[in-house]
Amino acid sequence: MLNRIGIVVKPNKPDAIALASDLVGWLGQRNIQVFLDEAIAQTVNHSLSCPRSEISRLVDLLIVLGGDGTLLSAVRAMEGNNIPILGVNLGGLGFLTEITLEELYPVLGQILAGKMETKRRMKLCATVLRRGERVNTYPVLNDVVITKGVLARIINLRNCIDGAYVTTYRGDGVIISTPTGSTAYSLAAGGPIVYPSMDSILITPICPHTLTNRPLLISDRATVEFTLESEESDVHLTLDGQVGYPLHPFDQVLVTKAKDYVVFVKSPFKDYFEILRTKLKWGER
Amino acid sequence: MLNRIGIVVKPNKPDAIALASDLVGWLGQRNIQVFLDEAIAQTVNHSLSCPRSEISRLVDLLIVLGGDGTLLSAVRAMEGNNIPILGVNLGGLGFLTEITLEELYPVLGQILAGKMETKRRMKLCATVLRRGERVNTYPVLNDVVITKGVLARIINLRNCIDGAYVTTYRGDGVIISTPTGSTAYSLAAGGPIVYPSMDSILITPICPHTLTNRPLLISDRATVEFTLESEESDVHLTLDGQVGYPLHPFDQVLVTKAKDYVVFVKSPFKDYFEILRTKLKWGER
Amino acid sequence: MLNRIGIVVKPNKPDAIALASDLVGWLGQRNIQVFLDEAIAQTVNHSLSCPRSEISRLVDLLIVLGGDGTLLSAVRAMEGNNIPILGVNLGGLGFLTEITLEELYPVLGQILAGKMETKRRMKLCATVLRRGERVNTYPVLNDVVITKGVLARIINLRNCIDGAYVTTYRGDGVIISTPTGSTAYSLAAGGPIVYPSMDSILITPICPHTLTNRPLLISDRATVEFTLESEESDVHLTLDGQVGYPLHPFDQVLVTKAKDYVVFVKSPFKDYFEILRTKLKWGER
Amino acid sequence: MLNRIGIVVKPNKPDAIALASDLVGWLGQRNIQVFLDEAIAQTVNHSLSCPRSEISRLVDLLIVLGGDGTLLSAVRAMEGNNIPILGVNLGGLGFLTEITLEELYPVLGQILAGKMETKRRMKLCATVLRRGERVNTYPVLNDVVITKGVLARIINLRNCIDGAYVTTYRGDGVIISTPTGSTAYSLAAGGPIVYPSMDSILITPICPHTLTNRPLLISDRATVEFTLESEESDVHLTLDGQVGYPLHPFDQVLVTKAKDYVVFVKSPFKDYFEILRTKLKWGER
Repeated sequence: MLNRIGIVVKPNKPDAIALASDLVGWLGQRNIQVFLDEAIAQTVNHSLSCPRSEISRLVDLLIVLGGDGTLLSAVRAMEGNNIPILGVNLGGLGFLTEITLEELYPVLGQILAGKMETKRRMKLCATVLRRGERVNTYPVLNDVVITKGVLARIINLRNCIDGAYVTTYRGDGVIISTPTGSTAYSLAAGGPIVYPSMDSILITPICPHTLTNRPLLISDRATVEFTLESEESDVHLTLDGQVGYPLHPFDQVLVTKAKDYVVFVKSPFKDYFEILRTKLKWGER
Repeated sequence: MLNRIGIVVKPNKPDAIALASDLVGWLGQRNIQVFLDEAIAQTVNHSLSCPRSEISRLVDLLIVLGGDGTLLSAVRAMEGNNIPILGVNLGGLGFLTEITLEELYPVLGQILAGKMETKRRMKLCATVLRRGERVNTYPVLNDVVITKGVLARIINLRNCIDGAYVTTYRGDGVIISTPTGSTAYSLAAGGPIVYPSMDSILITPICPHTLTNRPLLISDRATVEFTLESEESDVHLTLDGQVGYPLHPFDQVLVTKAKDYVVFVKSPFKDYFEILRTKLKWGER
Repeated sequence: MLNRIGIVVKPNKPDAIALASDLVGWLGQRNIQVFLDEAIAQTVNHSLSCPRSEISRLVDLLIVLGGDGTLLSAVRAMEGNNIPILGVNLGGLGFLTEITLEELYPVLGQILAGKMETKRRMKLCATVLRRGERVNTYPVLNDVVITKGVLARIINLRNCIDGAYVTTYRGDGVIISTPTGSTAYSLAAGGPIVYPSMDSILITPICPHTLTNRPLLISDRATVEFTLESEESDVHLTLDGQVGYPLHPFDQVLVTKAKDYVVFVKSPFKDYFEILRTKLKWGER
Repeated sequence: MLNRIGIVVKPNKPDAIALASDLVGWLGQRNIQVFLDEAIAQTVNHSLSCPRSEISRLVDLLIVLGGDGTLLSAVRAMEGNNIPILGVNLGGLGFLTEITLEELYPVLGQILAGKMETKRRMKLCATVLRRGERVNTYPVLNDVVITKGVLARIINLRNCIDGAYVTTYRGDGVIISTPTGSTAYSLAAGGPIVYPSMDSILITPICPHTLTNRPLLISDRATVEFTLESEESDVHLTLDGQVGYPLHPFDQVLVTKAKDYVVFVKSPFKDYFEILRTKLKWGER
């Protein structure tokens, strides 16, 4: 039984706040205890507010109102506490936020009636090693990106998989993505679409100097290692397109599958292929 | 213990025949019983010859002398009898025939000394349905290709995966490939490289009219179905780039993972990434 | 002054025939003599009918009702007699038929009032040489395509430009296109968009085996020569996606700019970039 | 008659300096006055040294010893003074430095004997406008690149050509290149090869969010305008991959053909297609 539901909202969006306010009332009428993202709790005038990073520990379901970006940041905030997430897109349809505004209350009605199906999505972990020492580890749902900064003309990234040398990518950088992330940055860089429930890791070079360097799909059990060969210092790590860190010459980035998964509420209204057709405009002439 | 070895040879290639002759002698000296592809047995003047389709039932190991094409045709001939295959490339290096001429005898020495490691590769099965009735089923190691003939300008292929509608591909056709086949025709059509031990199915459209139709990777447990929507009759099915059949309007092609695998002898000298680097010229400047 | 207008119509399309009938009346009221494609003259019950190949000699303007395919075949029929063409698309918008149904009468009103602007588009000529002898010459507005048939696995096409060896393309074939044709088959094969008023020739390989073979843009003054190197006989020449001829081993295909141009009536309502945005769905999210 | 020759050398490269020293001697013996890049004049111990930016005013021919990067920076330094350039590649073969070490003295011999052929290559000019005011104008031989910095996730670039709206590119940025630059960054980003003597401008989007945004080739007479739509401030202009400037929100970048050309000495030993075959490894299997 679902008793407590959390709501995370894209900040500074009047329509998101209005919807949150409406949703708080709707859930309250159904005796659900609602915990609200403190970033907007005051605006909505709701008593049970708490920080994003705490909210997932207190609830049985998290509703995200916004777009794919809001959902990615909510997933990062709830690290290690994988309750189901219902992603609601406020401006159409997202690859991650596949519930539209019109579908929100019907889906919630079904969930409260006990008809909730979920699906899990693998994550990746990126660990930065500096002089062999672990600096930090970052989890992602979509992708780990290693790119040149503006001053760099080209960067060299030496890649090994499970200890075996693959190649040294020369170009703008490289994207290491989950199947979920295959329709994000990797797709723009020329990568394939990977069905999101698959367990695999996709490596997509960005504008590679060697034209035969192509996207590579490997097992989710692999350890993917990139070493900064060049002495240039203008190389950066970006996580889920949101958080960035500068890398140092000779840093290593290890990418492996994360131990935990993200859990999403399945839309009863559409499957993955319908999302592809809509987002990529396949259906139309 | 290996007692009997079969040899299949690319016909009409003097160097292949010379090598086969040499190999028959070398194996004979080591008390191995050799069965030779009847297509060349006479030329080599060897007594134990038999048809390609029978040879794999009589031996413990099959040596293929030729290129990837010879190996694909040998695999097709030995359907259902999956003894290990040692593919020897006579003109450099193949994706499937990864043993070079210089490596042949050292590798055989190791094999006879009991040090043989193998790896298995998934296959696909393509079943043609006509008016709902099964016409035939074809196994492939690389790919099932559905393409327009010369007269057709464009063909329409309605695709469902596990019964769910995906899209209707419009263009030159579509390639359904194994991970092994990802470096064959699919790569030329813009597909990614899929590590060959993975269990997955790759669908790559050929010159799609809808530019956002991209290569799609799905689970090896999926049933992939293509239906010929158009009334044009100039559509063809090609298996591993070698055997072709005309399809009829409204035919359906079902593609699923085959029950059996192909077993290859692992090269002790090189891994998959070295083959990629060599074949795709990654190492060079 | 425009006194005589021809009308060519996509056959077997009731809405095209209805529109033709309406148009004949509208033009008649304005004292324009109308010549109708004999393929539909009887259906429309119009007295001045003549064969497609003759019609352009008798009129000052040709109206094409259909899609890009109808227009390409009308251009082929009127070879050598380049009166202005007004292409009307019956099902949306074409790259070549850029006048929509709603725009037809307003545009005609402007034309009859003397406000007609035209634009010219270069064509290519493909000449087939067999044992050094010219077999035939074919003009195209979009593209000359040399492709493998169904039985061929791969074809080899040796390419020279102005007598200098370029490379031998190995793959499904090659597209030689005008700027106008860059948004037809070439785009599906990975080619760039070339602004249609440019004078240049685009060579786009189809699924090339050598991954670094990329689309190549050269001067319109060049002579492009392809020689069939392989002994395989299953190679075909296709002109504007409509007419095909089998080629023989060792045939040569010479492609040069045609002496004449096709002349189109300029749409007063939209420019080329609007057509790109609409056809390629650039404007939408 | 050539009396004075300038030499520009890649700094900090011992083999370049050794070659420069040798070349100074060789030319001195032939009564040629040699002006040496002051950056290395002291190392070579040569009396007639002068700054790179001055050298081209004093000589009849400029020899560049280095790679394509050295040549691009020499071209930038000699702005407006277009004497012929002989580019010598010290490490193989460049697209711009097409004379190899072995060919240097034979080519110079021919040049001194009066047998010098030249070819000209168009340049582009990028003008930055801020609040409608011209900030600066930069000439390039290869490309003008507008890209996002590391913090930006995606940038929006509104593009007009000759005042007509084309589209708003969303992604990593855009490359505006000459035909010469088509084999530089643009090729890595998916652009076509444009024969370098053509007069045209190539616009190649970098990892565009809209997958149907494709490379676009337009006339060299066009004015290409990009406006930074987003309020993000992390957008940068890079010229020939070497010099970068930060752009401000709402800045405009105008790109037009430069009035002057770069003049290169034609290699008597190889044509453009041979360079393509070598650099892109077309010839090999």
